[in-house]
Amino acid sequence: MPTVWQRRFTKKIDRRILTFTSSVKDDERLIPYDIAASIAHVRMLRKQNIIKARDAVQLVRGLQRILREYKKQKLKLHEELEDVHMNIEQRLRAIIGKQAGQLHTARSRNDLIATDLRLYSRDLIISMVKSISEVQTAILENARDTVGLVVPGYTHMQHAQPIFWSFFMLSHFFKLQRDIECFGDTLKRVDESPLGSVACAGTCHPIDPACTARFLQCSRFFDNALAAVADRDYLAESMFFCTQITLHIATLAEDIIILSTREFNIIELEEKIATGSSIMPHKKNPDVCELLRAKTGNAIGNLVSVLTILKGLPSSYNRDLQEIKSVFFRQADATIECLKIAVLVVESIQLTKSDWADKENMICATDIVDYAVKQGYSFRTAYSSITQCVRKSRGDVDVFITLCAEDLGIEQKIIRHMLKPKHSVMSKRSPGSTSLKETQRALKRAQLLLRKNETRIEKWRKYTRIF
Amino acid sequence: MPTVWQRRFTKKIDRRILTFTSSVKDDERLIPYDIAASIAHVRMLRKQNIIKARDAVQLVRGLQRILREYKKQKLKLHEELEDVHMNIEQRLRAIIGKQAGQLHTARSRNDLIATDLRLYSRDLIISMVKSISEVQTAILENARDTVGLVVPGYTHMQHAQPIFWSFFMLSHFFKLQRDIECFGDTLKRVDESPLGSVACAGTCHPIDPACTARFLQCSRFFDNALAAVADRDYLAESMFFCTQITLHIATLAEDIIILSTREFNIIELEEKIATGSSIMPHKKNPDVCELLRAKTGNAIGNLVSVLTILKGLPSSYNRDLQEIKSVFFRQADATIECLKIAVLVVESIQLTKSDWADKENMICATDIVDYAVKQGYSFRTAYSSITQCVRKSRGDVDVFITLCAEDLGIEQKIIRHMLKPKHSVMSKRSPGSTSLKETQRALKRAQLLLRKNETRIEKWRKYTRIF
Amino acid sequence: MPTVWQRRFTKKIDRRILTFTSSVKDDERLIPYDIAASIAHVRMLRKQNIIKARDAVQLVRGLQRILREYKKQKLKLHEELEDVHMNIEQRLRAIIGKQAGQLHTARSRNDLIATDLRLYSRDLIISMVKSISEVQTAILENARDTVGLVVPGYTHMQHAQPIFWSFFMLSHFFKLQRDIECFGDTLKRVDESPLGSVACAGTCHPIDPACTARFLQCSRFFDNALAAVADRDYLAESMFFCTQITLHIATLAEDIIILSTREFNIIELEEKIATGSSIMPHKKNPDVCELLRAKTGNAIGNLVSVLTILKGLPSSYNRDLQEIKSVFFRQADATIECLKIAVLVVESIQLTKSDWADKENMICATDIVDYAVKQGYSFRTAYSSITQCVRKSRGDVDVFITLCAEDLGIEQKIIRHMLKPKHSVMSKRSPGSTSLKETQRALKRAQLLLRKNETRIEKWRKYTRIF
Amino acid sequence: MPTVWQRRFTKKIDRRILTFTSSVKDDERLIPYDIAASIAHVRMLRKQNIIKARDAVQLVRGLQRILREYKKQKLKLHEELEDVHMNIEQRLRAIIGKQAGQLHTARSRNDLIATDLRLYSRDLIISMVKSISEVQTAILENARDTVGLVVPGYTHMQHAQPIFWSFFMLSHFFKLQRDIECFGDTLKRVDESPLGSVACAGTCHPIDPACTARFLQCSRFFDNALAAVADRDYLAESMFFCTQITLHIATLAEDIIILSTREFNIIELEEKIATGSSIMPHKKNPDVCELLRAKTGNAIGNLVSVLTILKGLPSSYNRDLQEIKSVFFRQADATIECLKIAVLVVESIQLTKSDWADKENMICATDIVDYAVKQGYSFRTAYSSITQCVRKSRGDVDVFITLCAEDLGIEQKIIRHMLKPKHSVMSKRSPGSTSLKETQRALKRAQLLLRKNETRIEKWRKYTRIF
Repeated sequence: MPTVWQRRFTKKIDRRILTFTSSVKDDERLIPYDIAASIAHVRMLRKQNIIKARDAVQLVRGLQRILREYKKQKLKLHEELEDVHMNIEQRLRAIIGKQAGQLHTARSRNDLIATDLRLYSRDLIISMVKSISEVQTAILENARDTVGLVVPGYTHMQHAQPIFWSFFMLSHFFKLQRDIECFGDTLKRVDESPLGSVACAGTCHPIDPACTARFLQCSRFFDNALAAVADRDYLAESMFFCTQITLHIATLAEDIIILSTREFNIIELEEKIATGSSIMPHKKNPDVCELLRAKTGNAIGNLVSVLTILKGLPSSYNRDLQEIKSVFFRQADATIECLKIAVLVVESIQLTKSDWADKENMICATDIVDYAVKQGYSFRTAYSSITQCVRKSRGDVDVFITLCAEDLGIEQKIIRHMLKPKHSVMSKRSPGSTSLKETQRALKRAQLLLRKNETRIEKWRKYTRIF
Repeated sequence: MPTVWQRRFTKKIDRRILTFTSSVKDDERLIPYDIAASIAHVRMLRKQNIIKARDAVQLVRGLQRILREYKKQKLKLHEELEDVHMNIEQRLRAIIGKQAGQLHTARSRNDLIATDLRLYSRDLIISMVKSISEVQTAILENARDTVGLVVPGYTHMQHAQPIFWSFFMLSHFFKLQRDIECFGDTLKRVDESPLGSVACAGTCHPIDPACTARFLQCSRFFDNALAAVADRDYLAESMFFCTQITLHIATLAEDIIILSTREFNIIELEEKIATGSSIMPHKKNPDVCELLRAKTGNAIGNLVSVLTILKGLPSSYNRDLQEIKSVFFRQADATIECLKIAVLVVESIQLTKSDWADKENMICATDIVDYAVKQGYSFRTAYSSITQCVRKSRGDVDVFITLCAEDLGIEQKIIRHMLKPKHSVMSKRSPGSTSLKETQRALKRAQLLLRKNETRIEKWRKYTRIF
Repeated sequence: MPTVWQRRFTKKIDRRILTFTSSVKDDERLIPYDIAASIAHVRMLRKQNIIKARDAVQLVRGLQRILREYKKQKLKLHEELEDVHMNIEQRLRAIIGKQAGQLHTARSRNDLIATDLRLYSRDLIISMVKSISEVQTAILENARDTVGLVVPGYTHMQHAQPIFWSFFMLSHFFKLQRDIECFGDTLKRVDESPLGSVACAGTCHPIDPACTARFLQCSRFFDNALAAVADRDYLAESMFFCTQITLHIATLAEDIIILSTREFNIIELEEKIATGSSIMPHKKNPDVCELLRAKTGNAIGNLVSVLTILKGLPSSYNRDLQEIKSVFFRQADATIECLKIAVLVVESIQLTKSDWADKENMICATDIVDYAVKQGYSFRTAYSSITQCVRKSRGDVDVFITLCAEDLGIEQKIIRHMLKPKHSVMSKRSPGSTSLKETQRALKRAQLLLRKNETRIEKWRKYTRIF
Repeated sequence: MPTVWQRRFTKKIDRRILTFTSSVKDDERLIPYDIAASIAHVRMLRKQNIIKARDAVQLVRGLQRILREYKKQKLKLHEELEDVHMNIEQRLRAIIGKQAGQLHTARSRNDLIATDLRLYSRDLIISMVKSISEVQTAILENARDTVGLVVPGYTHMQHAQPIFWSFFMLSHFFKLQRDIECFGDTLKRVDESPLGSVACAGTCHPIDPACTARFLQCSRFFDNALAAVADRDYLAESMFFCTQITLHIATLAEDIIILSTREFNIIELEEKIATGSSIMPHKKNPDVCELLRAKTGNAIGNLVSVLTILKGLPSSYNRDLQEIKSVFFRQADATIECLKIAVLVVESIQLTKSDWADKENMICATDIVDYAVKQGYSFRTAYSSITQCVRKSRGDVDVFITLCAEDLGIEQKIIRHMLKPKHSVMSKRSPGSTSLKETQRALKRAQLLLRKNETRIEKWRKYTRIF
């Protein structure tokens, strides 16, 4: 089976070159989208009376049969046919004969691959949103189950102020919610049909790209054929938001790695997600979290690949664009996998017990400042006095209490009370803070957002109608 | 002037360390935003009755005076005061005395810098949209002035099909329009006030972050204090879209570099933007376009810097975030500069005259295929025949015409006519194509979009009210 | 088959986690190196009398049998055994029984994987150097076959000065030679054995890492066990130089893309490496070169992945390092493939005929300046005069000749003669220049370097002795 | 003052374009190198009898005077003269008059900037090596002062095996030593003179580039003029090794951040390098280390900028190369600064006291395995038994001892003894291990390497002779 254009040349293409340029190894997952695009194209050609009714029926039936073959894993792509498009046209010819030659009327591989990738990306974004939502659900469950538990809050990895564990978990929830909103915006840009831009200039046939777009459940079609065939910006944008997700997962992973060290000892990972050593019998390692952290490196690198491939290209279609596909698919799979694993990780977080929150701790020094302010001190004056007490006490809480009481004229008992982490979190009251009331409000809001996400996903179900 | 926290320590900070950690060199541009944030904060503190009316008035007046000093370029930041926040608090103390100590009540530098950066980014995005719009205006003007001019359209840098130059220019216009829409989406995420998240846990003072947000013309406030102080995702997202713009400008630049070579000779750059050589008298170089192309490399690198800085950080505020600032500012300036220069470049494009479009050219071979399809051939059959004619004719148009006529039974005269580039573009009729009608429709649509952008920018004027 | 450390835990590892953490999918290619490392380790253990002679013999025989199984493609790695090391230990147990338990004495997976990767990288660098050398051979052949052919030399893609095509091709040759030298330097760093650093702290067994290194044909062993287990710098360095190669190949590809456009028309690609279009019959596209250009994007991205994975890791072994493996292998394969394809591309370059070099051309304007300098003008004066002549002549060579002759008092005939590209290249005489003599000298030097490379590769043959 | 090539055009260059293209803002630091290159060039021109003796003397004197002006900070570069080269030629003209016009004979800005950058890079590498050496000295001092101190060794941030602190510090020392060796190799490639390649093709003047190279203390000159003017690979390579250094420093910084948390509490930073909070009185933050960690992000990003700028450029000089300069200079400065700050950080490490090493600890479980092996157990059998004991003991050391004693038939006393971290480190004996003897040997080797580095730096002093 030679390539369709082989007749233009007197010499045959070198086999190694064919292997190098062929994209069939990446195209497998595009098959259903390519078929859907072809069916929509044929229906439009018929509607516009560019092909005959009888031919259209045959073409569509043939394509549907190929789709069934694909679903039964009976469709094999051949490298020598270059890509998914030529493979399907060829298979169609084997099924319905010469009429298959009408399929490529008023289109080209340039607008076809652009269409396949957009349809695929649309579905990918939906899977992404679903998977993010699953991590959110696991986080929310954890946050709900642990209401009331107080842990140190850190800045610069040093004690900052006591916080509720649920508040900490919710901080991850809200970041992921933003990821969903970002993907929602990207979807608007993805959901555009480029079919009908043909090679780069449109066509003299009376096609109706708006109609094709409708058949493909796309909300709009392209503005400019030349821009449409070369546009891969939505892939780069999708990959950017994939990177953002992996950054969020990496921060969660880093938190777990630190908090599960023997030294921090705030959480323990369930054994089913921990690993051991081949020589050190006592080991229990958070390898899964380390790998999640590392995946961010891959995501950033893959994003760079795509951006750098695009850098400096002239307008219109250039074959460089093909290289983007495999990077994009790789990162798509990796992001989904990370999210699935993150669910397991979150589910396996166990919190160690401790009476830490009931004992006086310097981590609450700021509470003394705030109390002094309420007593009439200006903030900076109160801060300044207590800072000196910290220095003089050299880490001894009792000395600190005595010094503070003297300096500020506050009863020792009060200071002692306020230095208890439990008191600190309870005293908070500002919106979005770690206070119990706010945390509970946030739990409810999180629940609401989850439901909103579900509605959104439901609405996207229409996209499956193209098959 | 020591740092505010110096009293916590017995030893003074090393001067070199101070220089290394200080951010005043980057903070200059944040001054007005920091003051606006402080004023909003003071007004909220007053509204919530956390500070006294008299004090509030004094604080606001002091801050406004500092803003005036800044505008008169009379405000100098001191490295030993670490950052913009401490500099302004210190200056305020110099102006209004001890009461300045109340300014930092119920806030911290963590939420303050987050606020400054968001307010700055909001304005930056508006400038960005304005500058993109200026490039679009220049492109549209060029496209309008050149209606009717036919040039070769390329794919793989090889002749593909004839197109109108205006159609080519509009392909750039629509890409930039998408950039504007992307920034519009980012703005939604930027336009959120983190003020009131304090160090990372909120506060026991009865603050009202929703009110502060209103004073800052922000559409919402943070969900979670811990997430709010560490969030720099909007900076990464802004930088991603800056990168996307530079990619678009680089493609325009690459197009110009190629099309203005002596060999392509389709456009010529006006002398006022060309450069010469120090030893070769005949040289006229497109250095400006080469630099625009190179700027994309910087943009991608800067994006990587930001993403890599964020990679693997634990939750909450870490000083690593400071490093993002200078990269972000650098890229913001560079992107705006690129856009300003792109305007000049587009304005200086001159098109060389040529009768190319009136002569038979193999670039129109596809037109013969399409014609044959209309005569009843299946697409693939027609394509296949004509492809063989191409091979046999070895580039000789006359031979090609004879062969085609024979093979397809079409009159030579018709083929000859269709091989003229001018005929090719005129025959196109599909929406989004290079046809004259479509190009004119696109010109109108572009004009409309420009007006829509203006309306959008107008709506954003409200943000300036914070000063 | 459970993991070796499973007994440490009461619960079994989650299957999905096992799949996520397992590296067997990447480890296939490490099998022979892992076996070689094990054999060297066993021989050292025996030499140091840590294990008994009889046991050592059994272990080595078992390992050699596994190597044979691998060569016959009869060895399958099992995911549930986590990695190549545990798979081989398990297989050894199946073959020789309980004695296999001695294999892991005084070593760990940490130092073992580090060893495998270094042995693999050593071989990879050798393959890389061989492949680069093949591209150089193709370039040299082309340069030799085309001696005497004059083409325009470009800067900024604009005509600069005439050059010999061979000189142009040799510029690519010398860049690749530098790549070989870079890899030679990297090899020095790769060629160090980390075996014996064990988990991170060494061991109480009286092992002799210097001896193990000798058995592995390594020139040295590690300085510090902690540094040794975590060191992947040589992988990053190798990937950097892979990126450098792809940059060099991309420049060659870009040159070919430009020079083979219909407009430049300096070279033509043989048909066996060109591709056509699915709808445009006349197309002949340089897809192969476009893909080679794009591969650089992947290389840069992959480098970023590795560097970003390493960023911010604490000392010692962390599982993040595992993620580097697949990126590294991917880039290694891609670089070798690029080089193989580059050979085909270079071999298929055909030069179009033209009498361009015999006609007066403004590209030689600098020659007039140089001539004037020899006649006594200061360089800047001559340059300045001739630059004005260029402007006034507005591209008309005859006018230019007249003006120059007047301004500088040189005979028109001489100027006309000097404006011929052929004369320009012939007149060059400086070392490293495009002169015929220098080009021929460079061809000889290139031949010499190729032979030197062969000698180098020959010397590296000793590394194969480890199997 | 117009640009030299302005006479080629009828219209003046746009001022904004001039600002955009001018590189004078970056060129300041190249001034001395540009002058040195010019002096070497003039001396060669004279030696080759291309210019007259009297003129040569004048030119050199003029250039030397400009160098003095620069050193006195009296030389200002003007944007409208584009770059350092034209500024110096213009200044020379102002000093010695028309003869200055001879300076640019047989050279161009293309080979001149390439020369400037190589000379600058050569000096930069030397500074880099000196600065690395200073960090090594601080590390070695720390390692020497702390001999005998035992701390937990980690893998996966979990307890692995006890190690000496000195051993840990030396792991950082040896990584830096490799950095020095890498830069040594890069220097070989940097130390090549491109002067004489002129625009891209060499010249018809009888210049002697080998002689120019000697005057510039370069060990060789270019092979091919076309390759020489466009080569910036040495900058990319230098930046790669800068990135490697920052990765090493980031790991050190990460170690310090973790080990100085309240929870790990192994080291404490001296107050002179710690920072506090503007609201939390108790805070002592490792900001300096966080910034050092973040600088790696910048380094990776800057490397990407350079590589991406180079990607896809055609052969020969393109103005894109100019953009590399500022990125390179920025990273050069940042790397040197990081190293200077790292010295301060290392000097301020204080170790907290603890009797940890004298108490039984599960971190020594591997020692029991190794002991059992010496008693005749196969490694895997011993490991397996003890792993089960770990599980059953659920972290209780006493239970673990009892179980182990039973299972392996070893006396409880012996096990108890071996579980003391101090015993563990003392029992190590393999080369490169954490044993006391090996650590002391390593300290000596480190001292030797430092001296070797000094000798190397001494040898490089010759490069300063060019001024």
